[in-house]
Amino acid sequence: MRAEILTIGDEILIGQIANTNSIWIARELNLMGVKVVHMASVSDDKTAITKAFSDAEQRADLVFITGGLGPTKDDITKKTIAEYFNLILEIDEAVLAHVKSFFTKRGRELSEINRQQALVPRGCTVIHNQNGTAPGMWLKKNNTVFISMPGVPYEMKGMMSDIILPKIKSENKLPFIYHKTVLTQGIGESALAELIETWEDKLIEKNIKLAYLPQPGVVRLRLSTHGTDLNKLEETVDNAIAHLTTIISKYIYGFEIYGEEPPTLQKIVSELLREQKQSIALAESCTGGFIASLFTAIAGSSDIFKGAIVPYHNNIKHDLLNVDNTVFEKYGAVSKECVTQMAENIRKKMGSDYGIATSGVAGPAGGTAEKPVGTVWVAVSCSEKTIALKFTFGDDRGRNIQMTANAALNMLRKLILKDNSDSSLIL
Amino acid sequence: MRAEILTIGDEILIGQIANTNSIWIARELNLMGVKVVHMASVSDDKTAITKAFSDAEQRADLVFITGGLGPTKDDITKKTIAEYFNLILEIDEAVLAHVKSFFTKRGRELSEINRQQALVPRGCTVIHNQNGTAPGMWLKKNNTVFISMPGVPYEMKGMMSDIILPKIKSENKLPFIYHKTVLTQGIGESALAELIETWEDKLIEKNIKLAYLPQPGVVRLRLSTHGTDLNKLEETVDNAIAHLTTIISKYIYGFEIYGEEPPTLQKIVSELLREQKQSIALAESCTGGFIASLFTAIAGSSDIFKGAIVPYHNNIKHDLLNVDNTVFEKYGAVSKECVTQMAENIRKKMGSDYGIATSGVAGPAGGTAEKPVGTVWVAVSCSEKTIALKFTFGDDRGRNIQMTANAALNMLRKLILKDNSDSSLIL
Repeated sequence: MRAEILTIGDEILIGQIANTNSIWIARELNLMGVKVVHMASVSDDKTAITKAFSDAEQRADLVFITGGLGPTKDDITKKTIAEYFNLILEIDEAVLAHVKSFFTKRGRELSEINRQQALVPRGCTVIHNQNGTAPGMWLKKNNTVFISMPGVPYEMKGMMSDIILPKIKSENKLPFIYHKTVLTQGIGESALAELIETWEDKLIEKNIKLAYLPQPGVVRLRLSTHGTDLNKLEETVDNAIAHLTTIISKYIYGFEIYGEEPPTLQKIVSELLREQKQSIALAESCTGGFIASLFTAIAGSSDIFKGAIVPYHNNIKHDLLNVDNTVFEKYGAVSKECVTQMAENIRKKMGSDYGIATSGVAGPAGGTAEKPVGTVWVAVSCSEKTIALKFTFGDDRGRNIQMTANAALNMLRKLILKDNSDSSLIL
Repeated sequence: MRAEILTIGDEILIGQIANTNSIWIARELNLMGVKVVHMASVSDDKTAITKAFSDAEQRADLVFITGGLGPTKDDITKKTIAEYFNLILEIDEAVLAHVKSFFTKRGRELSEINRQQALVPRGCTVIHNQNGTAPGMWLKKNNTVFISMPGVPYEMKGMMSDIILPKIKSENKLPFIYHKTVLTQGIGESALAELIETWEDKLIEKNIKLAYLPQPGVVRLRLSTHGTDLNKLEETVDNAIAHLTTIISKYIYGFEIYGEEPPTLQKIVSELLREQKQSIALAESCTGGFIASLFTAIAGSSDIFKGAIVPYHNNIKHDLLNVDNTVFEKYGAVSKECVTQMAENIRKKMGSDYGIATSGVAGPAGGTAEKPVGTVWVAVSCSEKTIALKFTFGDDRGRNIQMTANAALNMLRKLILKDNSDSSLIL
């Protein structure tokens, strides 16, 4: 079964907003064994939309359309669909009732603009929008199903998860596509490729495809295969990964099984802490609250996260984290001595089992000959010991912050697991 | 001049990574007056890539291709380009010298896999990659120019900014496309649409297109027009915006001129503080370090940002921020009294001119009948006064954190500007 994903909206073509809907839809379809063969984005323009519909009809069994269903005047998808399918638009009473109740709940009057949300092409299957007012539409032409949804991500996702994906699953017999991704930290893409070249060469005979997915500080290795026997697919991939692990174990921090929530380093660390009923506190200088925001983005993080201090100035490192003033004089704030004191003291200050401290030159300014932009010290601490490491990242502030966060989280992971393997960086 | 953007890579079609390259390229082209008519993503598959090339050749004058140039075996773009243009691949000595020096600088040996990066189709114009080893390629077929670049964003961006965009600009006479975006906070999309309906109806006769771009807590209104006289385009749009401002001034926090760095609320606030040589410190409970990470992502933020405390537990709110224990007993941590003390005390603790405090039920758990998920208190404080406001957001943890941050930053903006207009939320 082949699918195409079509996003409609000038905001995509002029680059004003990210196309997150296509990624999400692709992920969900892939998991079900529907192959996405093409993605396209076109303008809020009748001719362009109509052309895209007829192209997609040639290529795919399922066409997923997002965008252009809003109540505002720039949205023309619904009108264009009605014309393409040669259907008239009429008020759907169930949708109108839903739109009315949506507004009543919020204590607001229904305006004419909102009433028009209840217009749908006569004869289409209406898809209920529990998170908004614009209904989805399911229509069939020849052998291709067209599914139109709003562009607002959480409205689209609600419809897909509750109605559209279950409907596709129940109506079709689909093959299995199996992916598993190996998550590595502390080694760059090229160095990794050389290290695993011999292993990689043998994947082709096992019908496994390999992809390298680099992110700041992290490289993900995705293994993919397909077939009819899911157990066999899993076994083939797991064997290949077992072999890989013998080569690069010290860089591997986890695995991502497609369709399951991807295990970020912060999630892995949070789970380890939760299992051991332990807690973490942070002293973040160069990462400036970024690691705290990663932990606190996870629901229920208050179980393991005590809090953080972001001491962006030396006097605050001294006043709130008791870093000795002699440290700044003798070694500077970007030093082993400074992060060691920060990591130990934040633990004591917040009464946590573990502490993380970061201090570095994030850039683009602030570098010196001795400590160029990208120089970062990270320490992790528990009651038994404190480990500090120096990293040399690049020139980009945003990347440096992310790379520092990933390095710190992996150091903490190893400290919790009493894993003494080297955590320094290989590029 | 019409352009198409083509991304090559299974990782896009299976939804594993976000397609940020297309957004960035689209933005840059748009700014130059090149219209992006189509975006497409295809698999690392020879047939699919070849088909996409010939489709694009029909539609566009310029085809921007990213992805599939890496040193690893899953990357086949270069080979496919050579076949499509019927050219042989040969080592380019200048590229080889660059690749060698790239490795020498990093103290590493050149492997065979890296040497192959210097292969290019004979006769193509090579585009230097200052940030990596894979060269870009510029080729012409009939009337269409094909430009192939690596998928690594900062390598692609370096080539575009330094070489490709200047080359296109110098070789073509391009029309002007002018966009300006009005940034609003504190009002939802539908409420805004109703408020400005009469104004919006008059845009068509001025040849202005309007788009609503909602984000959590913020709605951006983009006005677009095109023509040959840039001054006149600017004047037309500015007049329309002047009229709009009389209707919704209290929601407007800034403007985005296309091609200039978009002014986020944190940037606007940082600039205001810098102008007045003043500083900010944060006490972030429900936002958990997110606002700190927004400030510290900005280069040079140490001028205005003193630091933050993320007191994720009441005892830390008490110990580090001196919140009275009676506050928790009488009002709870999600209360006006709590955020008021937090905002005032973080200011004193860090010696800053302004303070922000947040405390709320971010969700998905932790709600009560009296304080359901989404209930958030925000306070902003300076030496003259402290203002606290209650917000009622939704069920989504991530959105609640972002909406709280935007609300807090806009409250601070108004406090700095001594703007007393109402900052509560209208949905």
